[in-house]
Amino acid sequence: MALAHRVMERCDVLGSCSEETFRLTRRFLTPPMREVHEHVGGWMIAAGLSPRIDAVGNILGHRAGTSTSAPSFVIGSHLDTVPHAGKYDGIVGVLLGIAVAEALRDAELPFGLLVAGFSEEEGVRYGAPFLGSMAAAGSFERSLLQLTDADGVSMDQAIRDFGGDPDRIAQAAWVPERLLGYLEAHIEQGPVLESLNLPIGIVTGIAGQTRAQVLFEGRAAHAGTVPPDQRRDALTGAAEFILAVEAHARATPDLRATVGTVNIGPNVSNVIPGRAMLGLDIRHADDQLRQAAVDHLLEVARQIGEARRLAVTLKTNATQSVVRCDPKLTRIMQEAVAEAGIRPSHLLSGAGHDAMVISRILPTAMLFLRCRDGVSHHPDESVKVEDVAAALDAMARFVSSLPKKLISAV
Amino acid sequence: MALAHRVMERCDVLGSCSEETFRLTRRFLTPPMREVHEHVGGWMIAAGLSPRIDAVGNILGHRAGTSTSAPSFVIGSHLDTVPHAGKYDGIVGVLLGIAVAEALRDAELPFGLLVAGFSEEEGVRYGAPFLGSMAAAGSFERSLLQLTDADGVSMDQAIRDFGGDPDRIAQAAWVPERLLGYLEAHIEQGPVLESLNLPIGIVTGIAGQTRAQVLFEGRAAHAGTVPPDQRRDALTGAAEFILAVEAHARATPDLRATVGTVNIGPNVSNVIPGRAMLGLDIRHADDQLRQAAVDHLLEVARQIGEARRLAVTLKTNATQSVVRCDPKLTRIMQEAVAEAGIRPSHLLSGAGHDAMVISRILPTAMLFLRCRDGVSHHPDESVKVEDVAAALDAMARFVSSLPKKLISAV
Repeated sequence: MALAHRVMERCDVLGSCSEETFRLTRRFLTPPMREVHEHVGGWMIAAGLSPRIDAVGNILGHRAGTSTSAPSFVIGSHLDTVPHAGKYDGIVGVLLGIAVAEALRDAELPFGLLVAGFSEEEGVRYGAPFLGSMAAAGSFERSLLQLTDADGVSMDQAIRDFGGDPDRIAQAAWVPERLLGYLEAHIEQGPVLESLNLPIGIVTGIAGQTRAQVLFEGRAAHAGTVPPDQRRDALTGAAEFILAVEAHARATPDLRATVGTVNIGPNVSNVIPGRAMLGLDIRHADDQLRQAAVDHLLEVARQIGEARRLAVTLKTNATQSVVRCDPKLTRIMQEAVAEAGIRPSHLLSGAGHDAMVISRILPTAMLFLRCRDGVSHHPDESVKVEDVAAALDAMARFVSSLPKKLISAV
Repeated sequence: MALAHRVMERCDVLGSCSEETFRLTRRFLTPPMREVHEHVGGWMIAAGLSPRIDAVGNILGHRAGTSTSAPSFVIGSHLDTVPHAGKYDGIVGVLLGIAVAEALRDAELPFGLLVAGFSEEEGVRYGAPFLGSMAAAGSFERSLLQLTDADGVSMDQAIRDFGGDPDRIAQAAWVPERLLGYLEAHIEQGPVLESLNLPIGIVTGIAGQTRAQVLFEGRAAHAGTVPPDQRRDALTGAAEFILAVEAHARATPDLRATVGTVNIGPNVSNVIPGRAMLGLDIRHADDQLRQAAVDHLLEVARQIGEARRLAVTLKTNATQSVVRCDPKLTRIMQEAVAEAGIRPSHLLSGAGHDAMVISRILPTAMLFLRCRDGVSHHPDESVKVEDVAAALDAMARFVSSLPKKLISAV
């Protein structure tokens, strides 16, 4: 429990490294990430890990195995946050990795241990997520460097300003042959474990996801003069679509469908809106059912546009198929959870994670921690120390059992 | 027709005095207003009017009557625009005033003529409309000077930067005893005259108006993980309200009800919106029916909040009762329109106008010009030269008949 308490205290410390005074906001390579590196680097050293920072600001703490030439197993998650975030999303996974190293400090492991704190996962500053893990997976596209943030700072410049090196991102890619696999612990960000009364759960995979933008265009006109039947109000059309999305999600098992952004024009109180742009997020455990939902909703948007004399423009921005965790590592995790005295329960992640990106190059396992009310991306995010202790216990058992269960099997 | 063509050409000239390169945006005392003053001042001089600019940037062109001590009659409108505006809203009324002075240049009038170009009516830069006419009416509240625009510039500073004097706004107030009345010509901004196939119409009054803000607050949460029945999505509640507003406007004769602004938080595509703020605009020719609509809609908002577990906060920002134009001036205008060979038609304005503010200190008449498709506050705003000629004819007849019809009646 002492180590679990330490993880909680460290979450508090990192929770104060923020771009804002009273709220936690820590976007990619903003100044508070420097403080985070100082804290995390110190804790890594205390846990017997040698820290270094790569070209995109990932912090990587390594200890060699009993044979220095042996490959390493990776435990990681991300260190950035959404605006007005909670203290645990991402962070707790990195700190659990360090705590596992601490717990196994005196254990002789035939493989190395690498704890990774990714510099970016949330996609807030540049509208592009997974920057840290993409660099690690060798899938970071150089064109991303040209993106600019809200202040007009390019990603290239932001990396240089932080002390990174955009020209060496390719060299930051991990060498899969030198690595055994990847484990990520993360808060569930949903209500399932709480409803099952379980501290932790084993993640079988990550739901597929489609992000789209739906633009309704009518005609801006004076709010005081144009009768209802002569209006082409883009916002009322958008409102009808928002409710259609909600209704379809309610009617379709396991579908998550959300309109998370609305931007209207001219957005003046006495002008009928001529333009409404919606950001749509659709997820499902089954790629075909997800695609069917996307097709249905985009057709609904078209019908609304036709009925209301609105032009409708649809744009799919990003599509991510379902990602399955590695069956062998997942089975080893299931046994570790059971050995920790916890009923193993399997669940699918509705949220994307760095594990999704790393799974392209390494066998991957994921563990979820219960969080209060399923709340995440919010200051009310809350995790119990007992659940952190349970996760640490399972993770340490998992790592300890790898030589017998994984390496002997290789 | 030559004068009407000149009005149209001048609308084109002022349409190029903009804060933006390819679109017309001219907010209170921004640099293009200086160009407008140069043009308008020159045209006033050519029409025999002596221009001056008052402490809040109103331009006022005056010519004395046959007796220099006689009071004056005012013709005016405003020179600012909404963002991405058309060329006629406000401007055509000022230019018609100058054209009337030009048409009557050689007429001997026993009273003076004052043409007013108000510096602000739309309320865009500081969220507070009618700044120019309020200064003229002596109802400009000094607390307005503390408001700041989107760039953080206070109104006090903006007035000083333009060369005005916030400390002399009280002295800019007109002296009602020295003035006979006020006439404003304005585009209809609605479809009524077009549907009646009439170039101009006589305004009997201005609809009452309520502006309110409705805030829905739920809980921001991860879009990928929280099932529909556990969401407290502020945006879906707001969408339900937007459609209820539309339905109530459709069901209630002559009611105009519009949600013109939406601002949600956090407005991130993978987060369920926790907060949605709507700006509501409600107008009716009958103050009691307007209040009944406001009460109904705010009750609907409360019911939506209750059903969806959302906190609802309601705030009425501004209420304006119906304003009636002066019966005597309106009758004189009716006769002038008939004498110009046009069937006199009466209509109520759904939009607010400077006439509403000036009516507190002076008898007021208003004339509407037909505009294409009822479009205003949009680059597609369009007025026919024939309709401008009709307005000019009626206005010149109106002013010419004042000595006999108004002054003899005093």
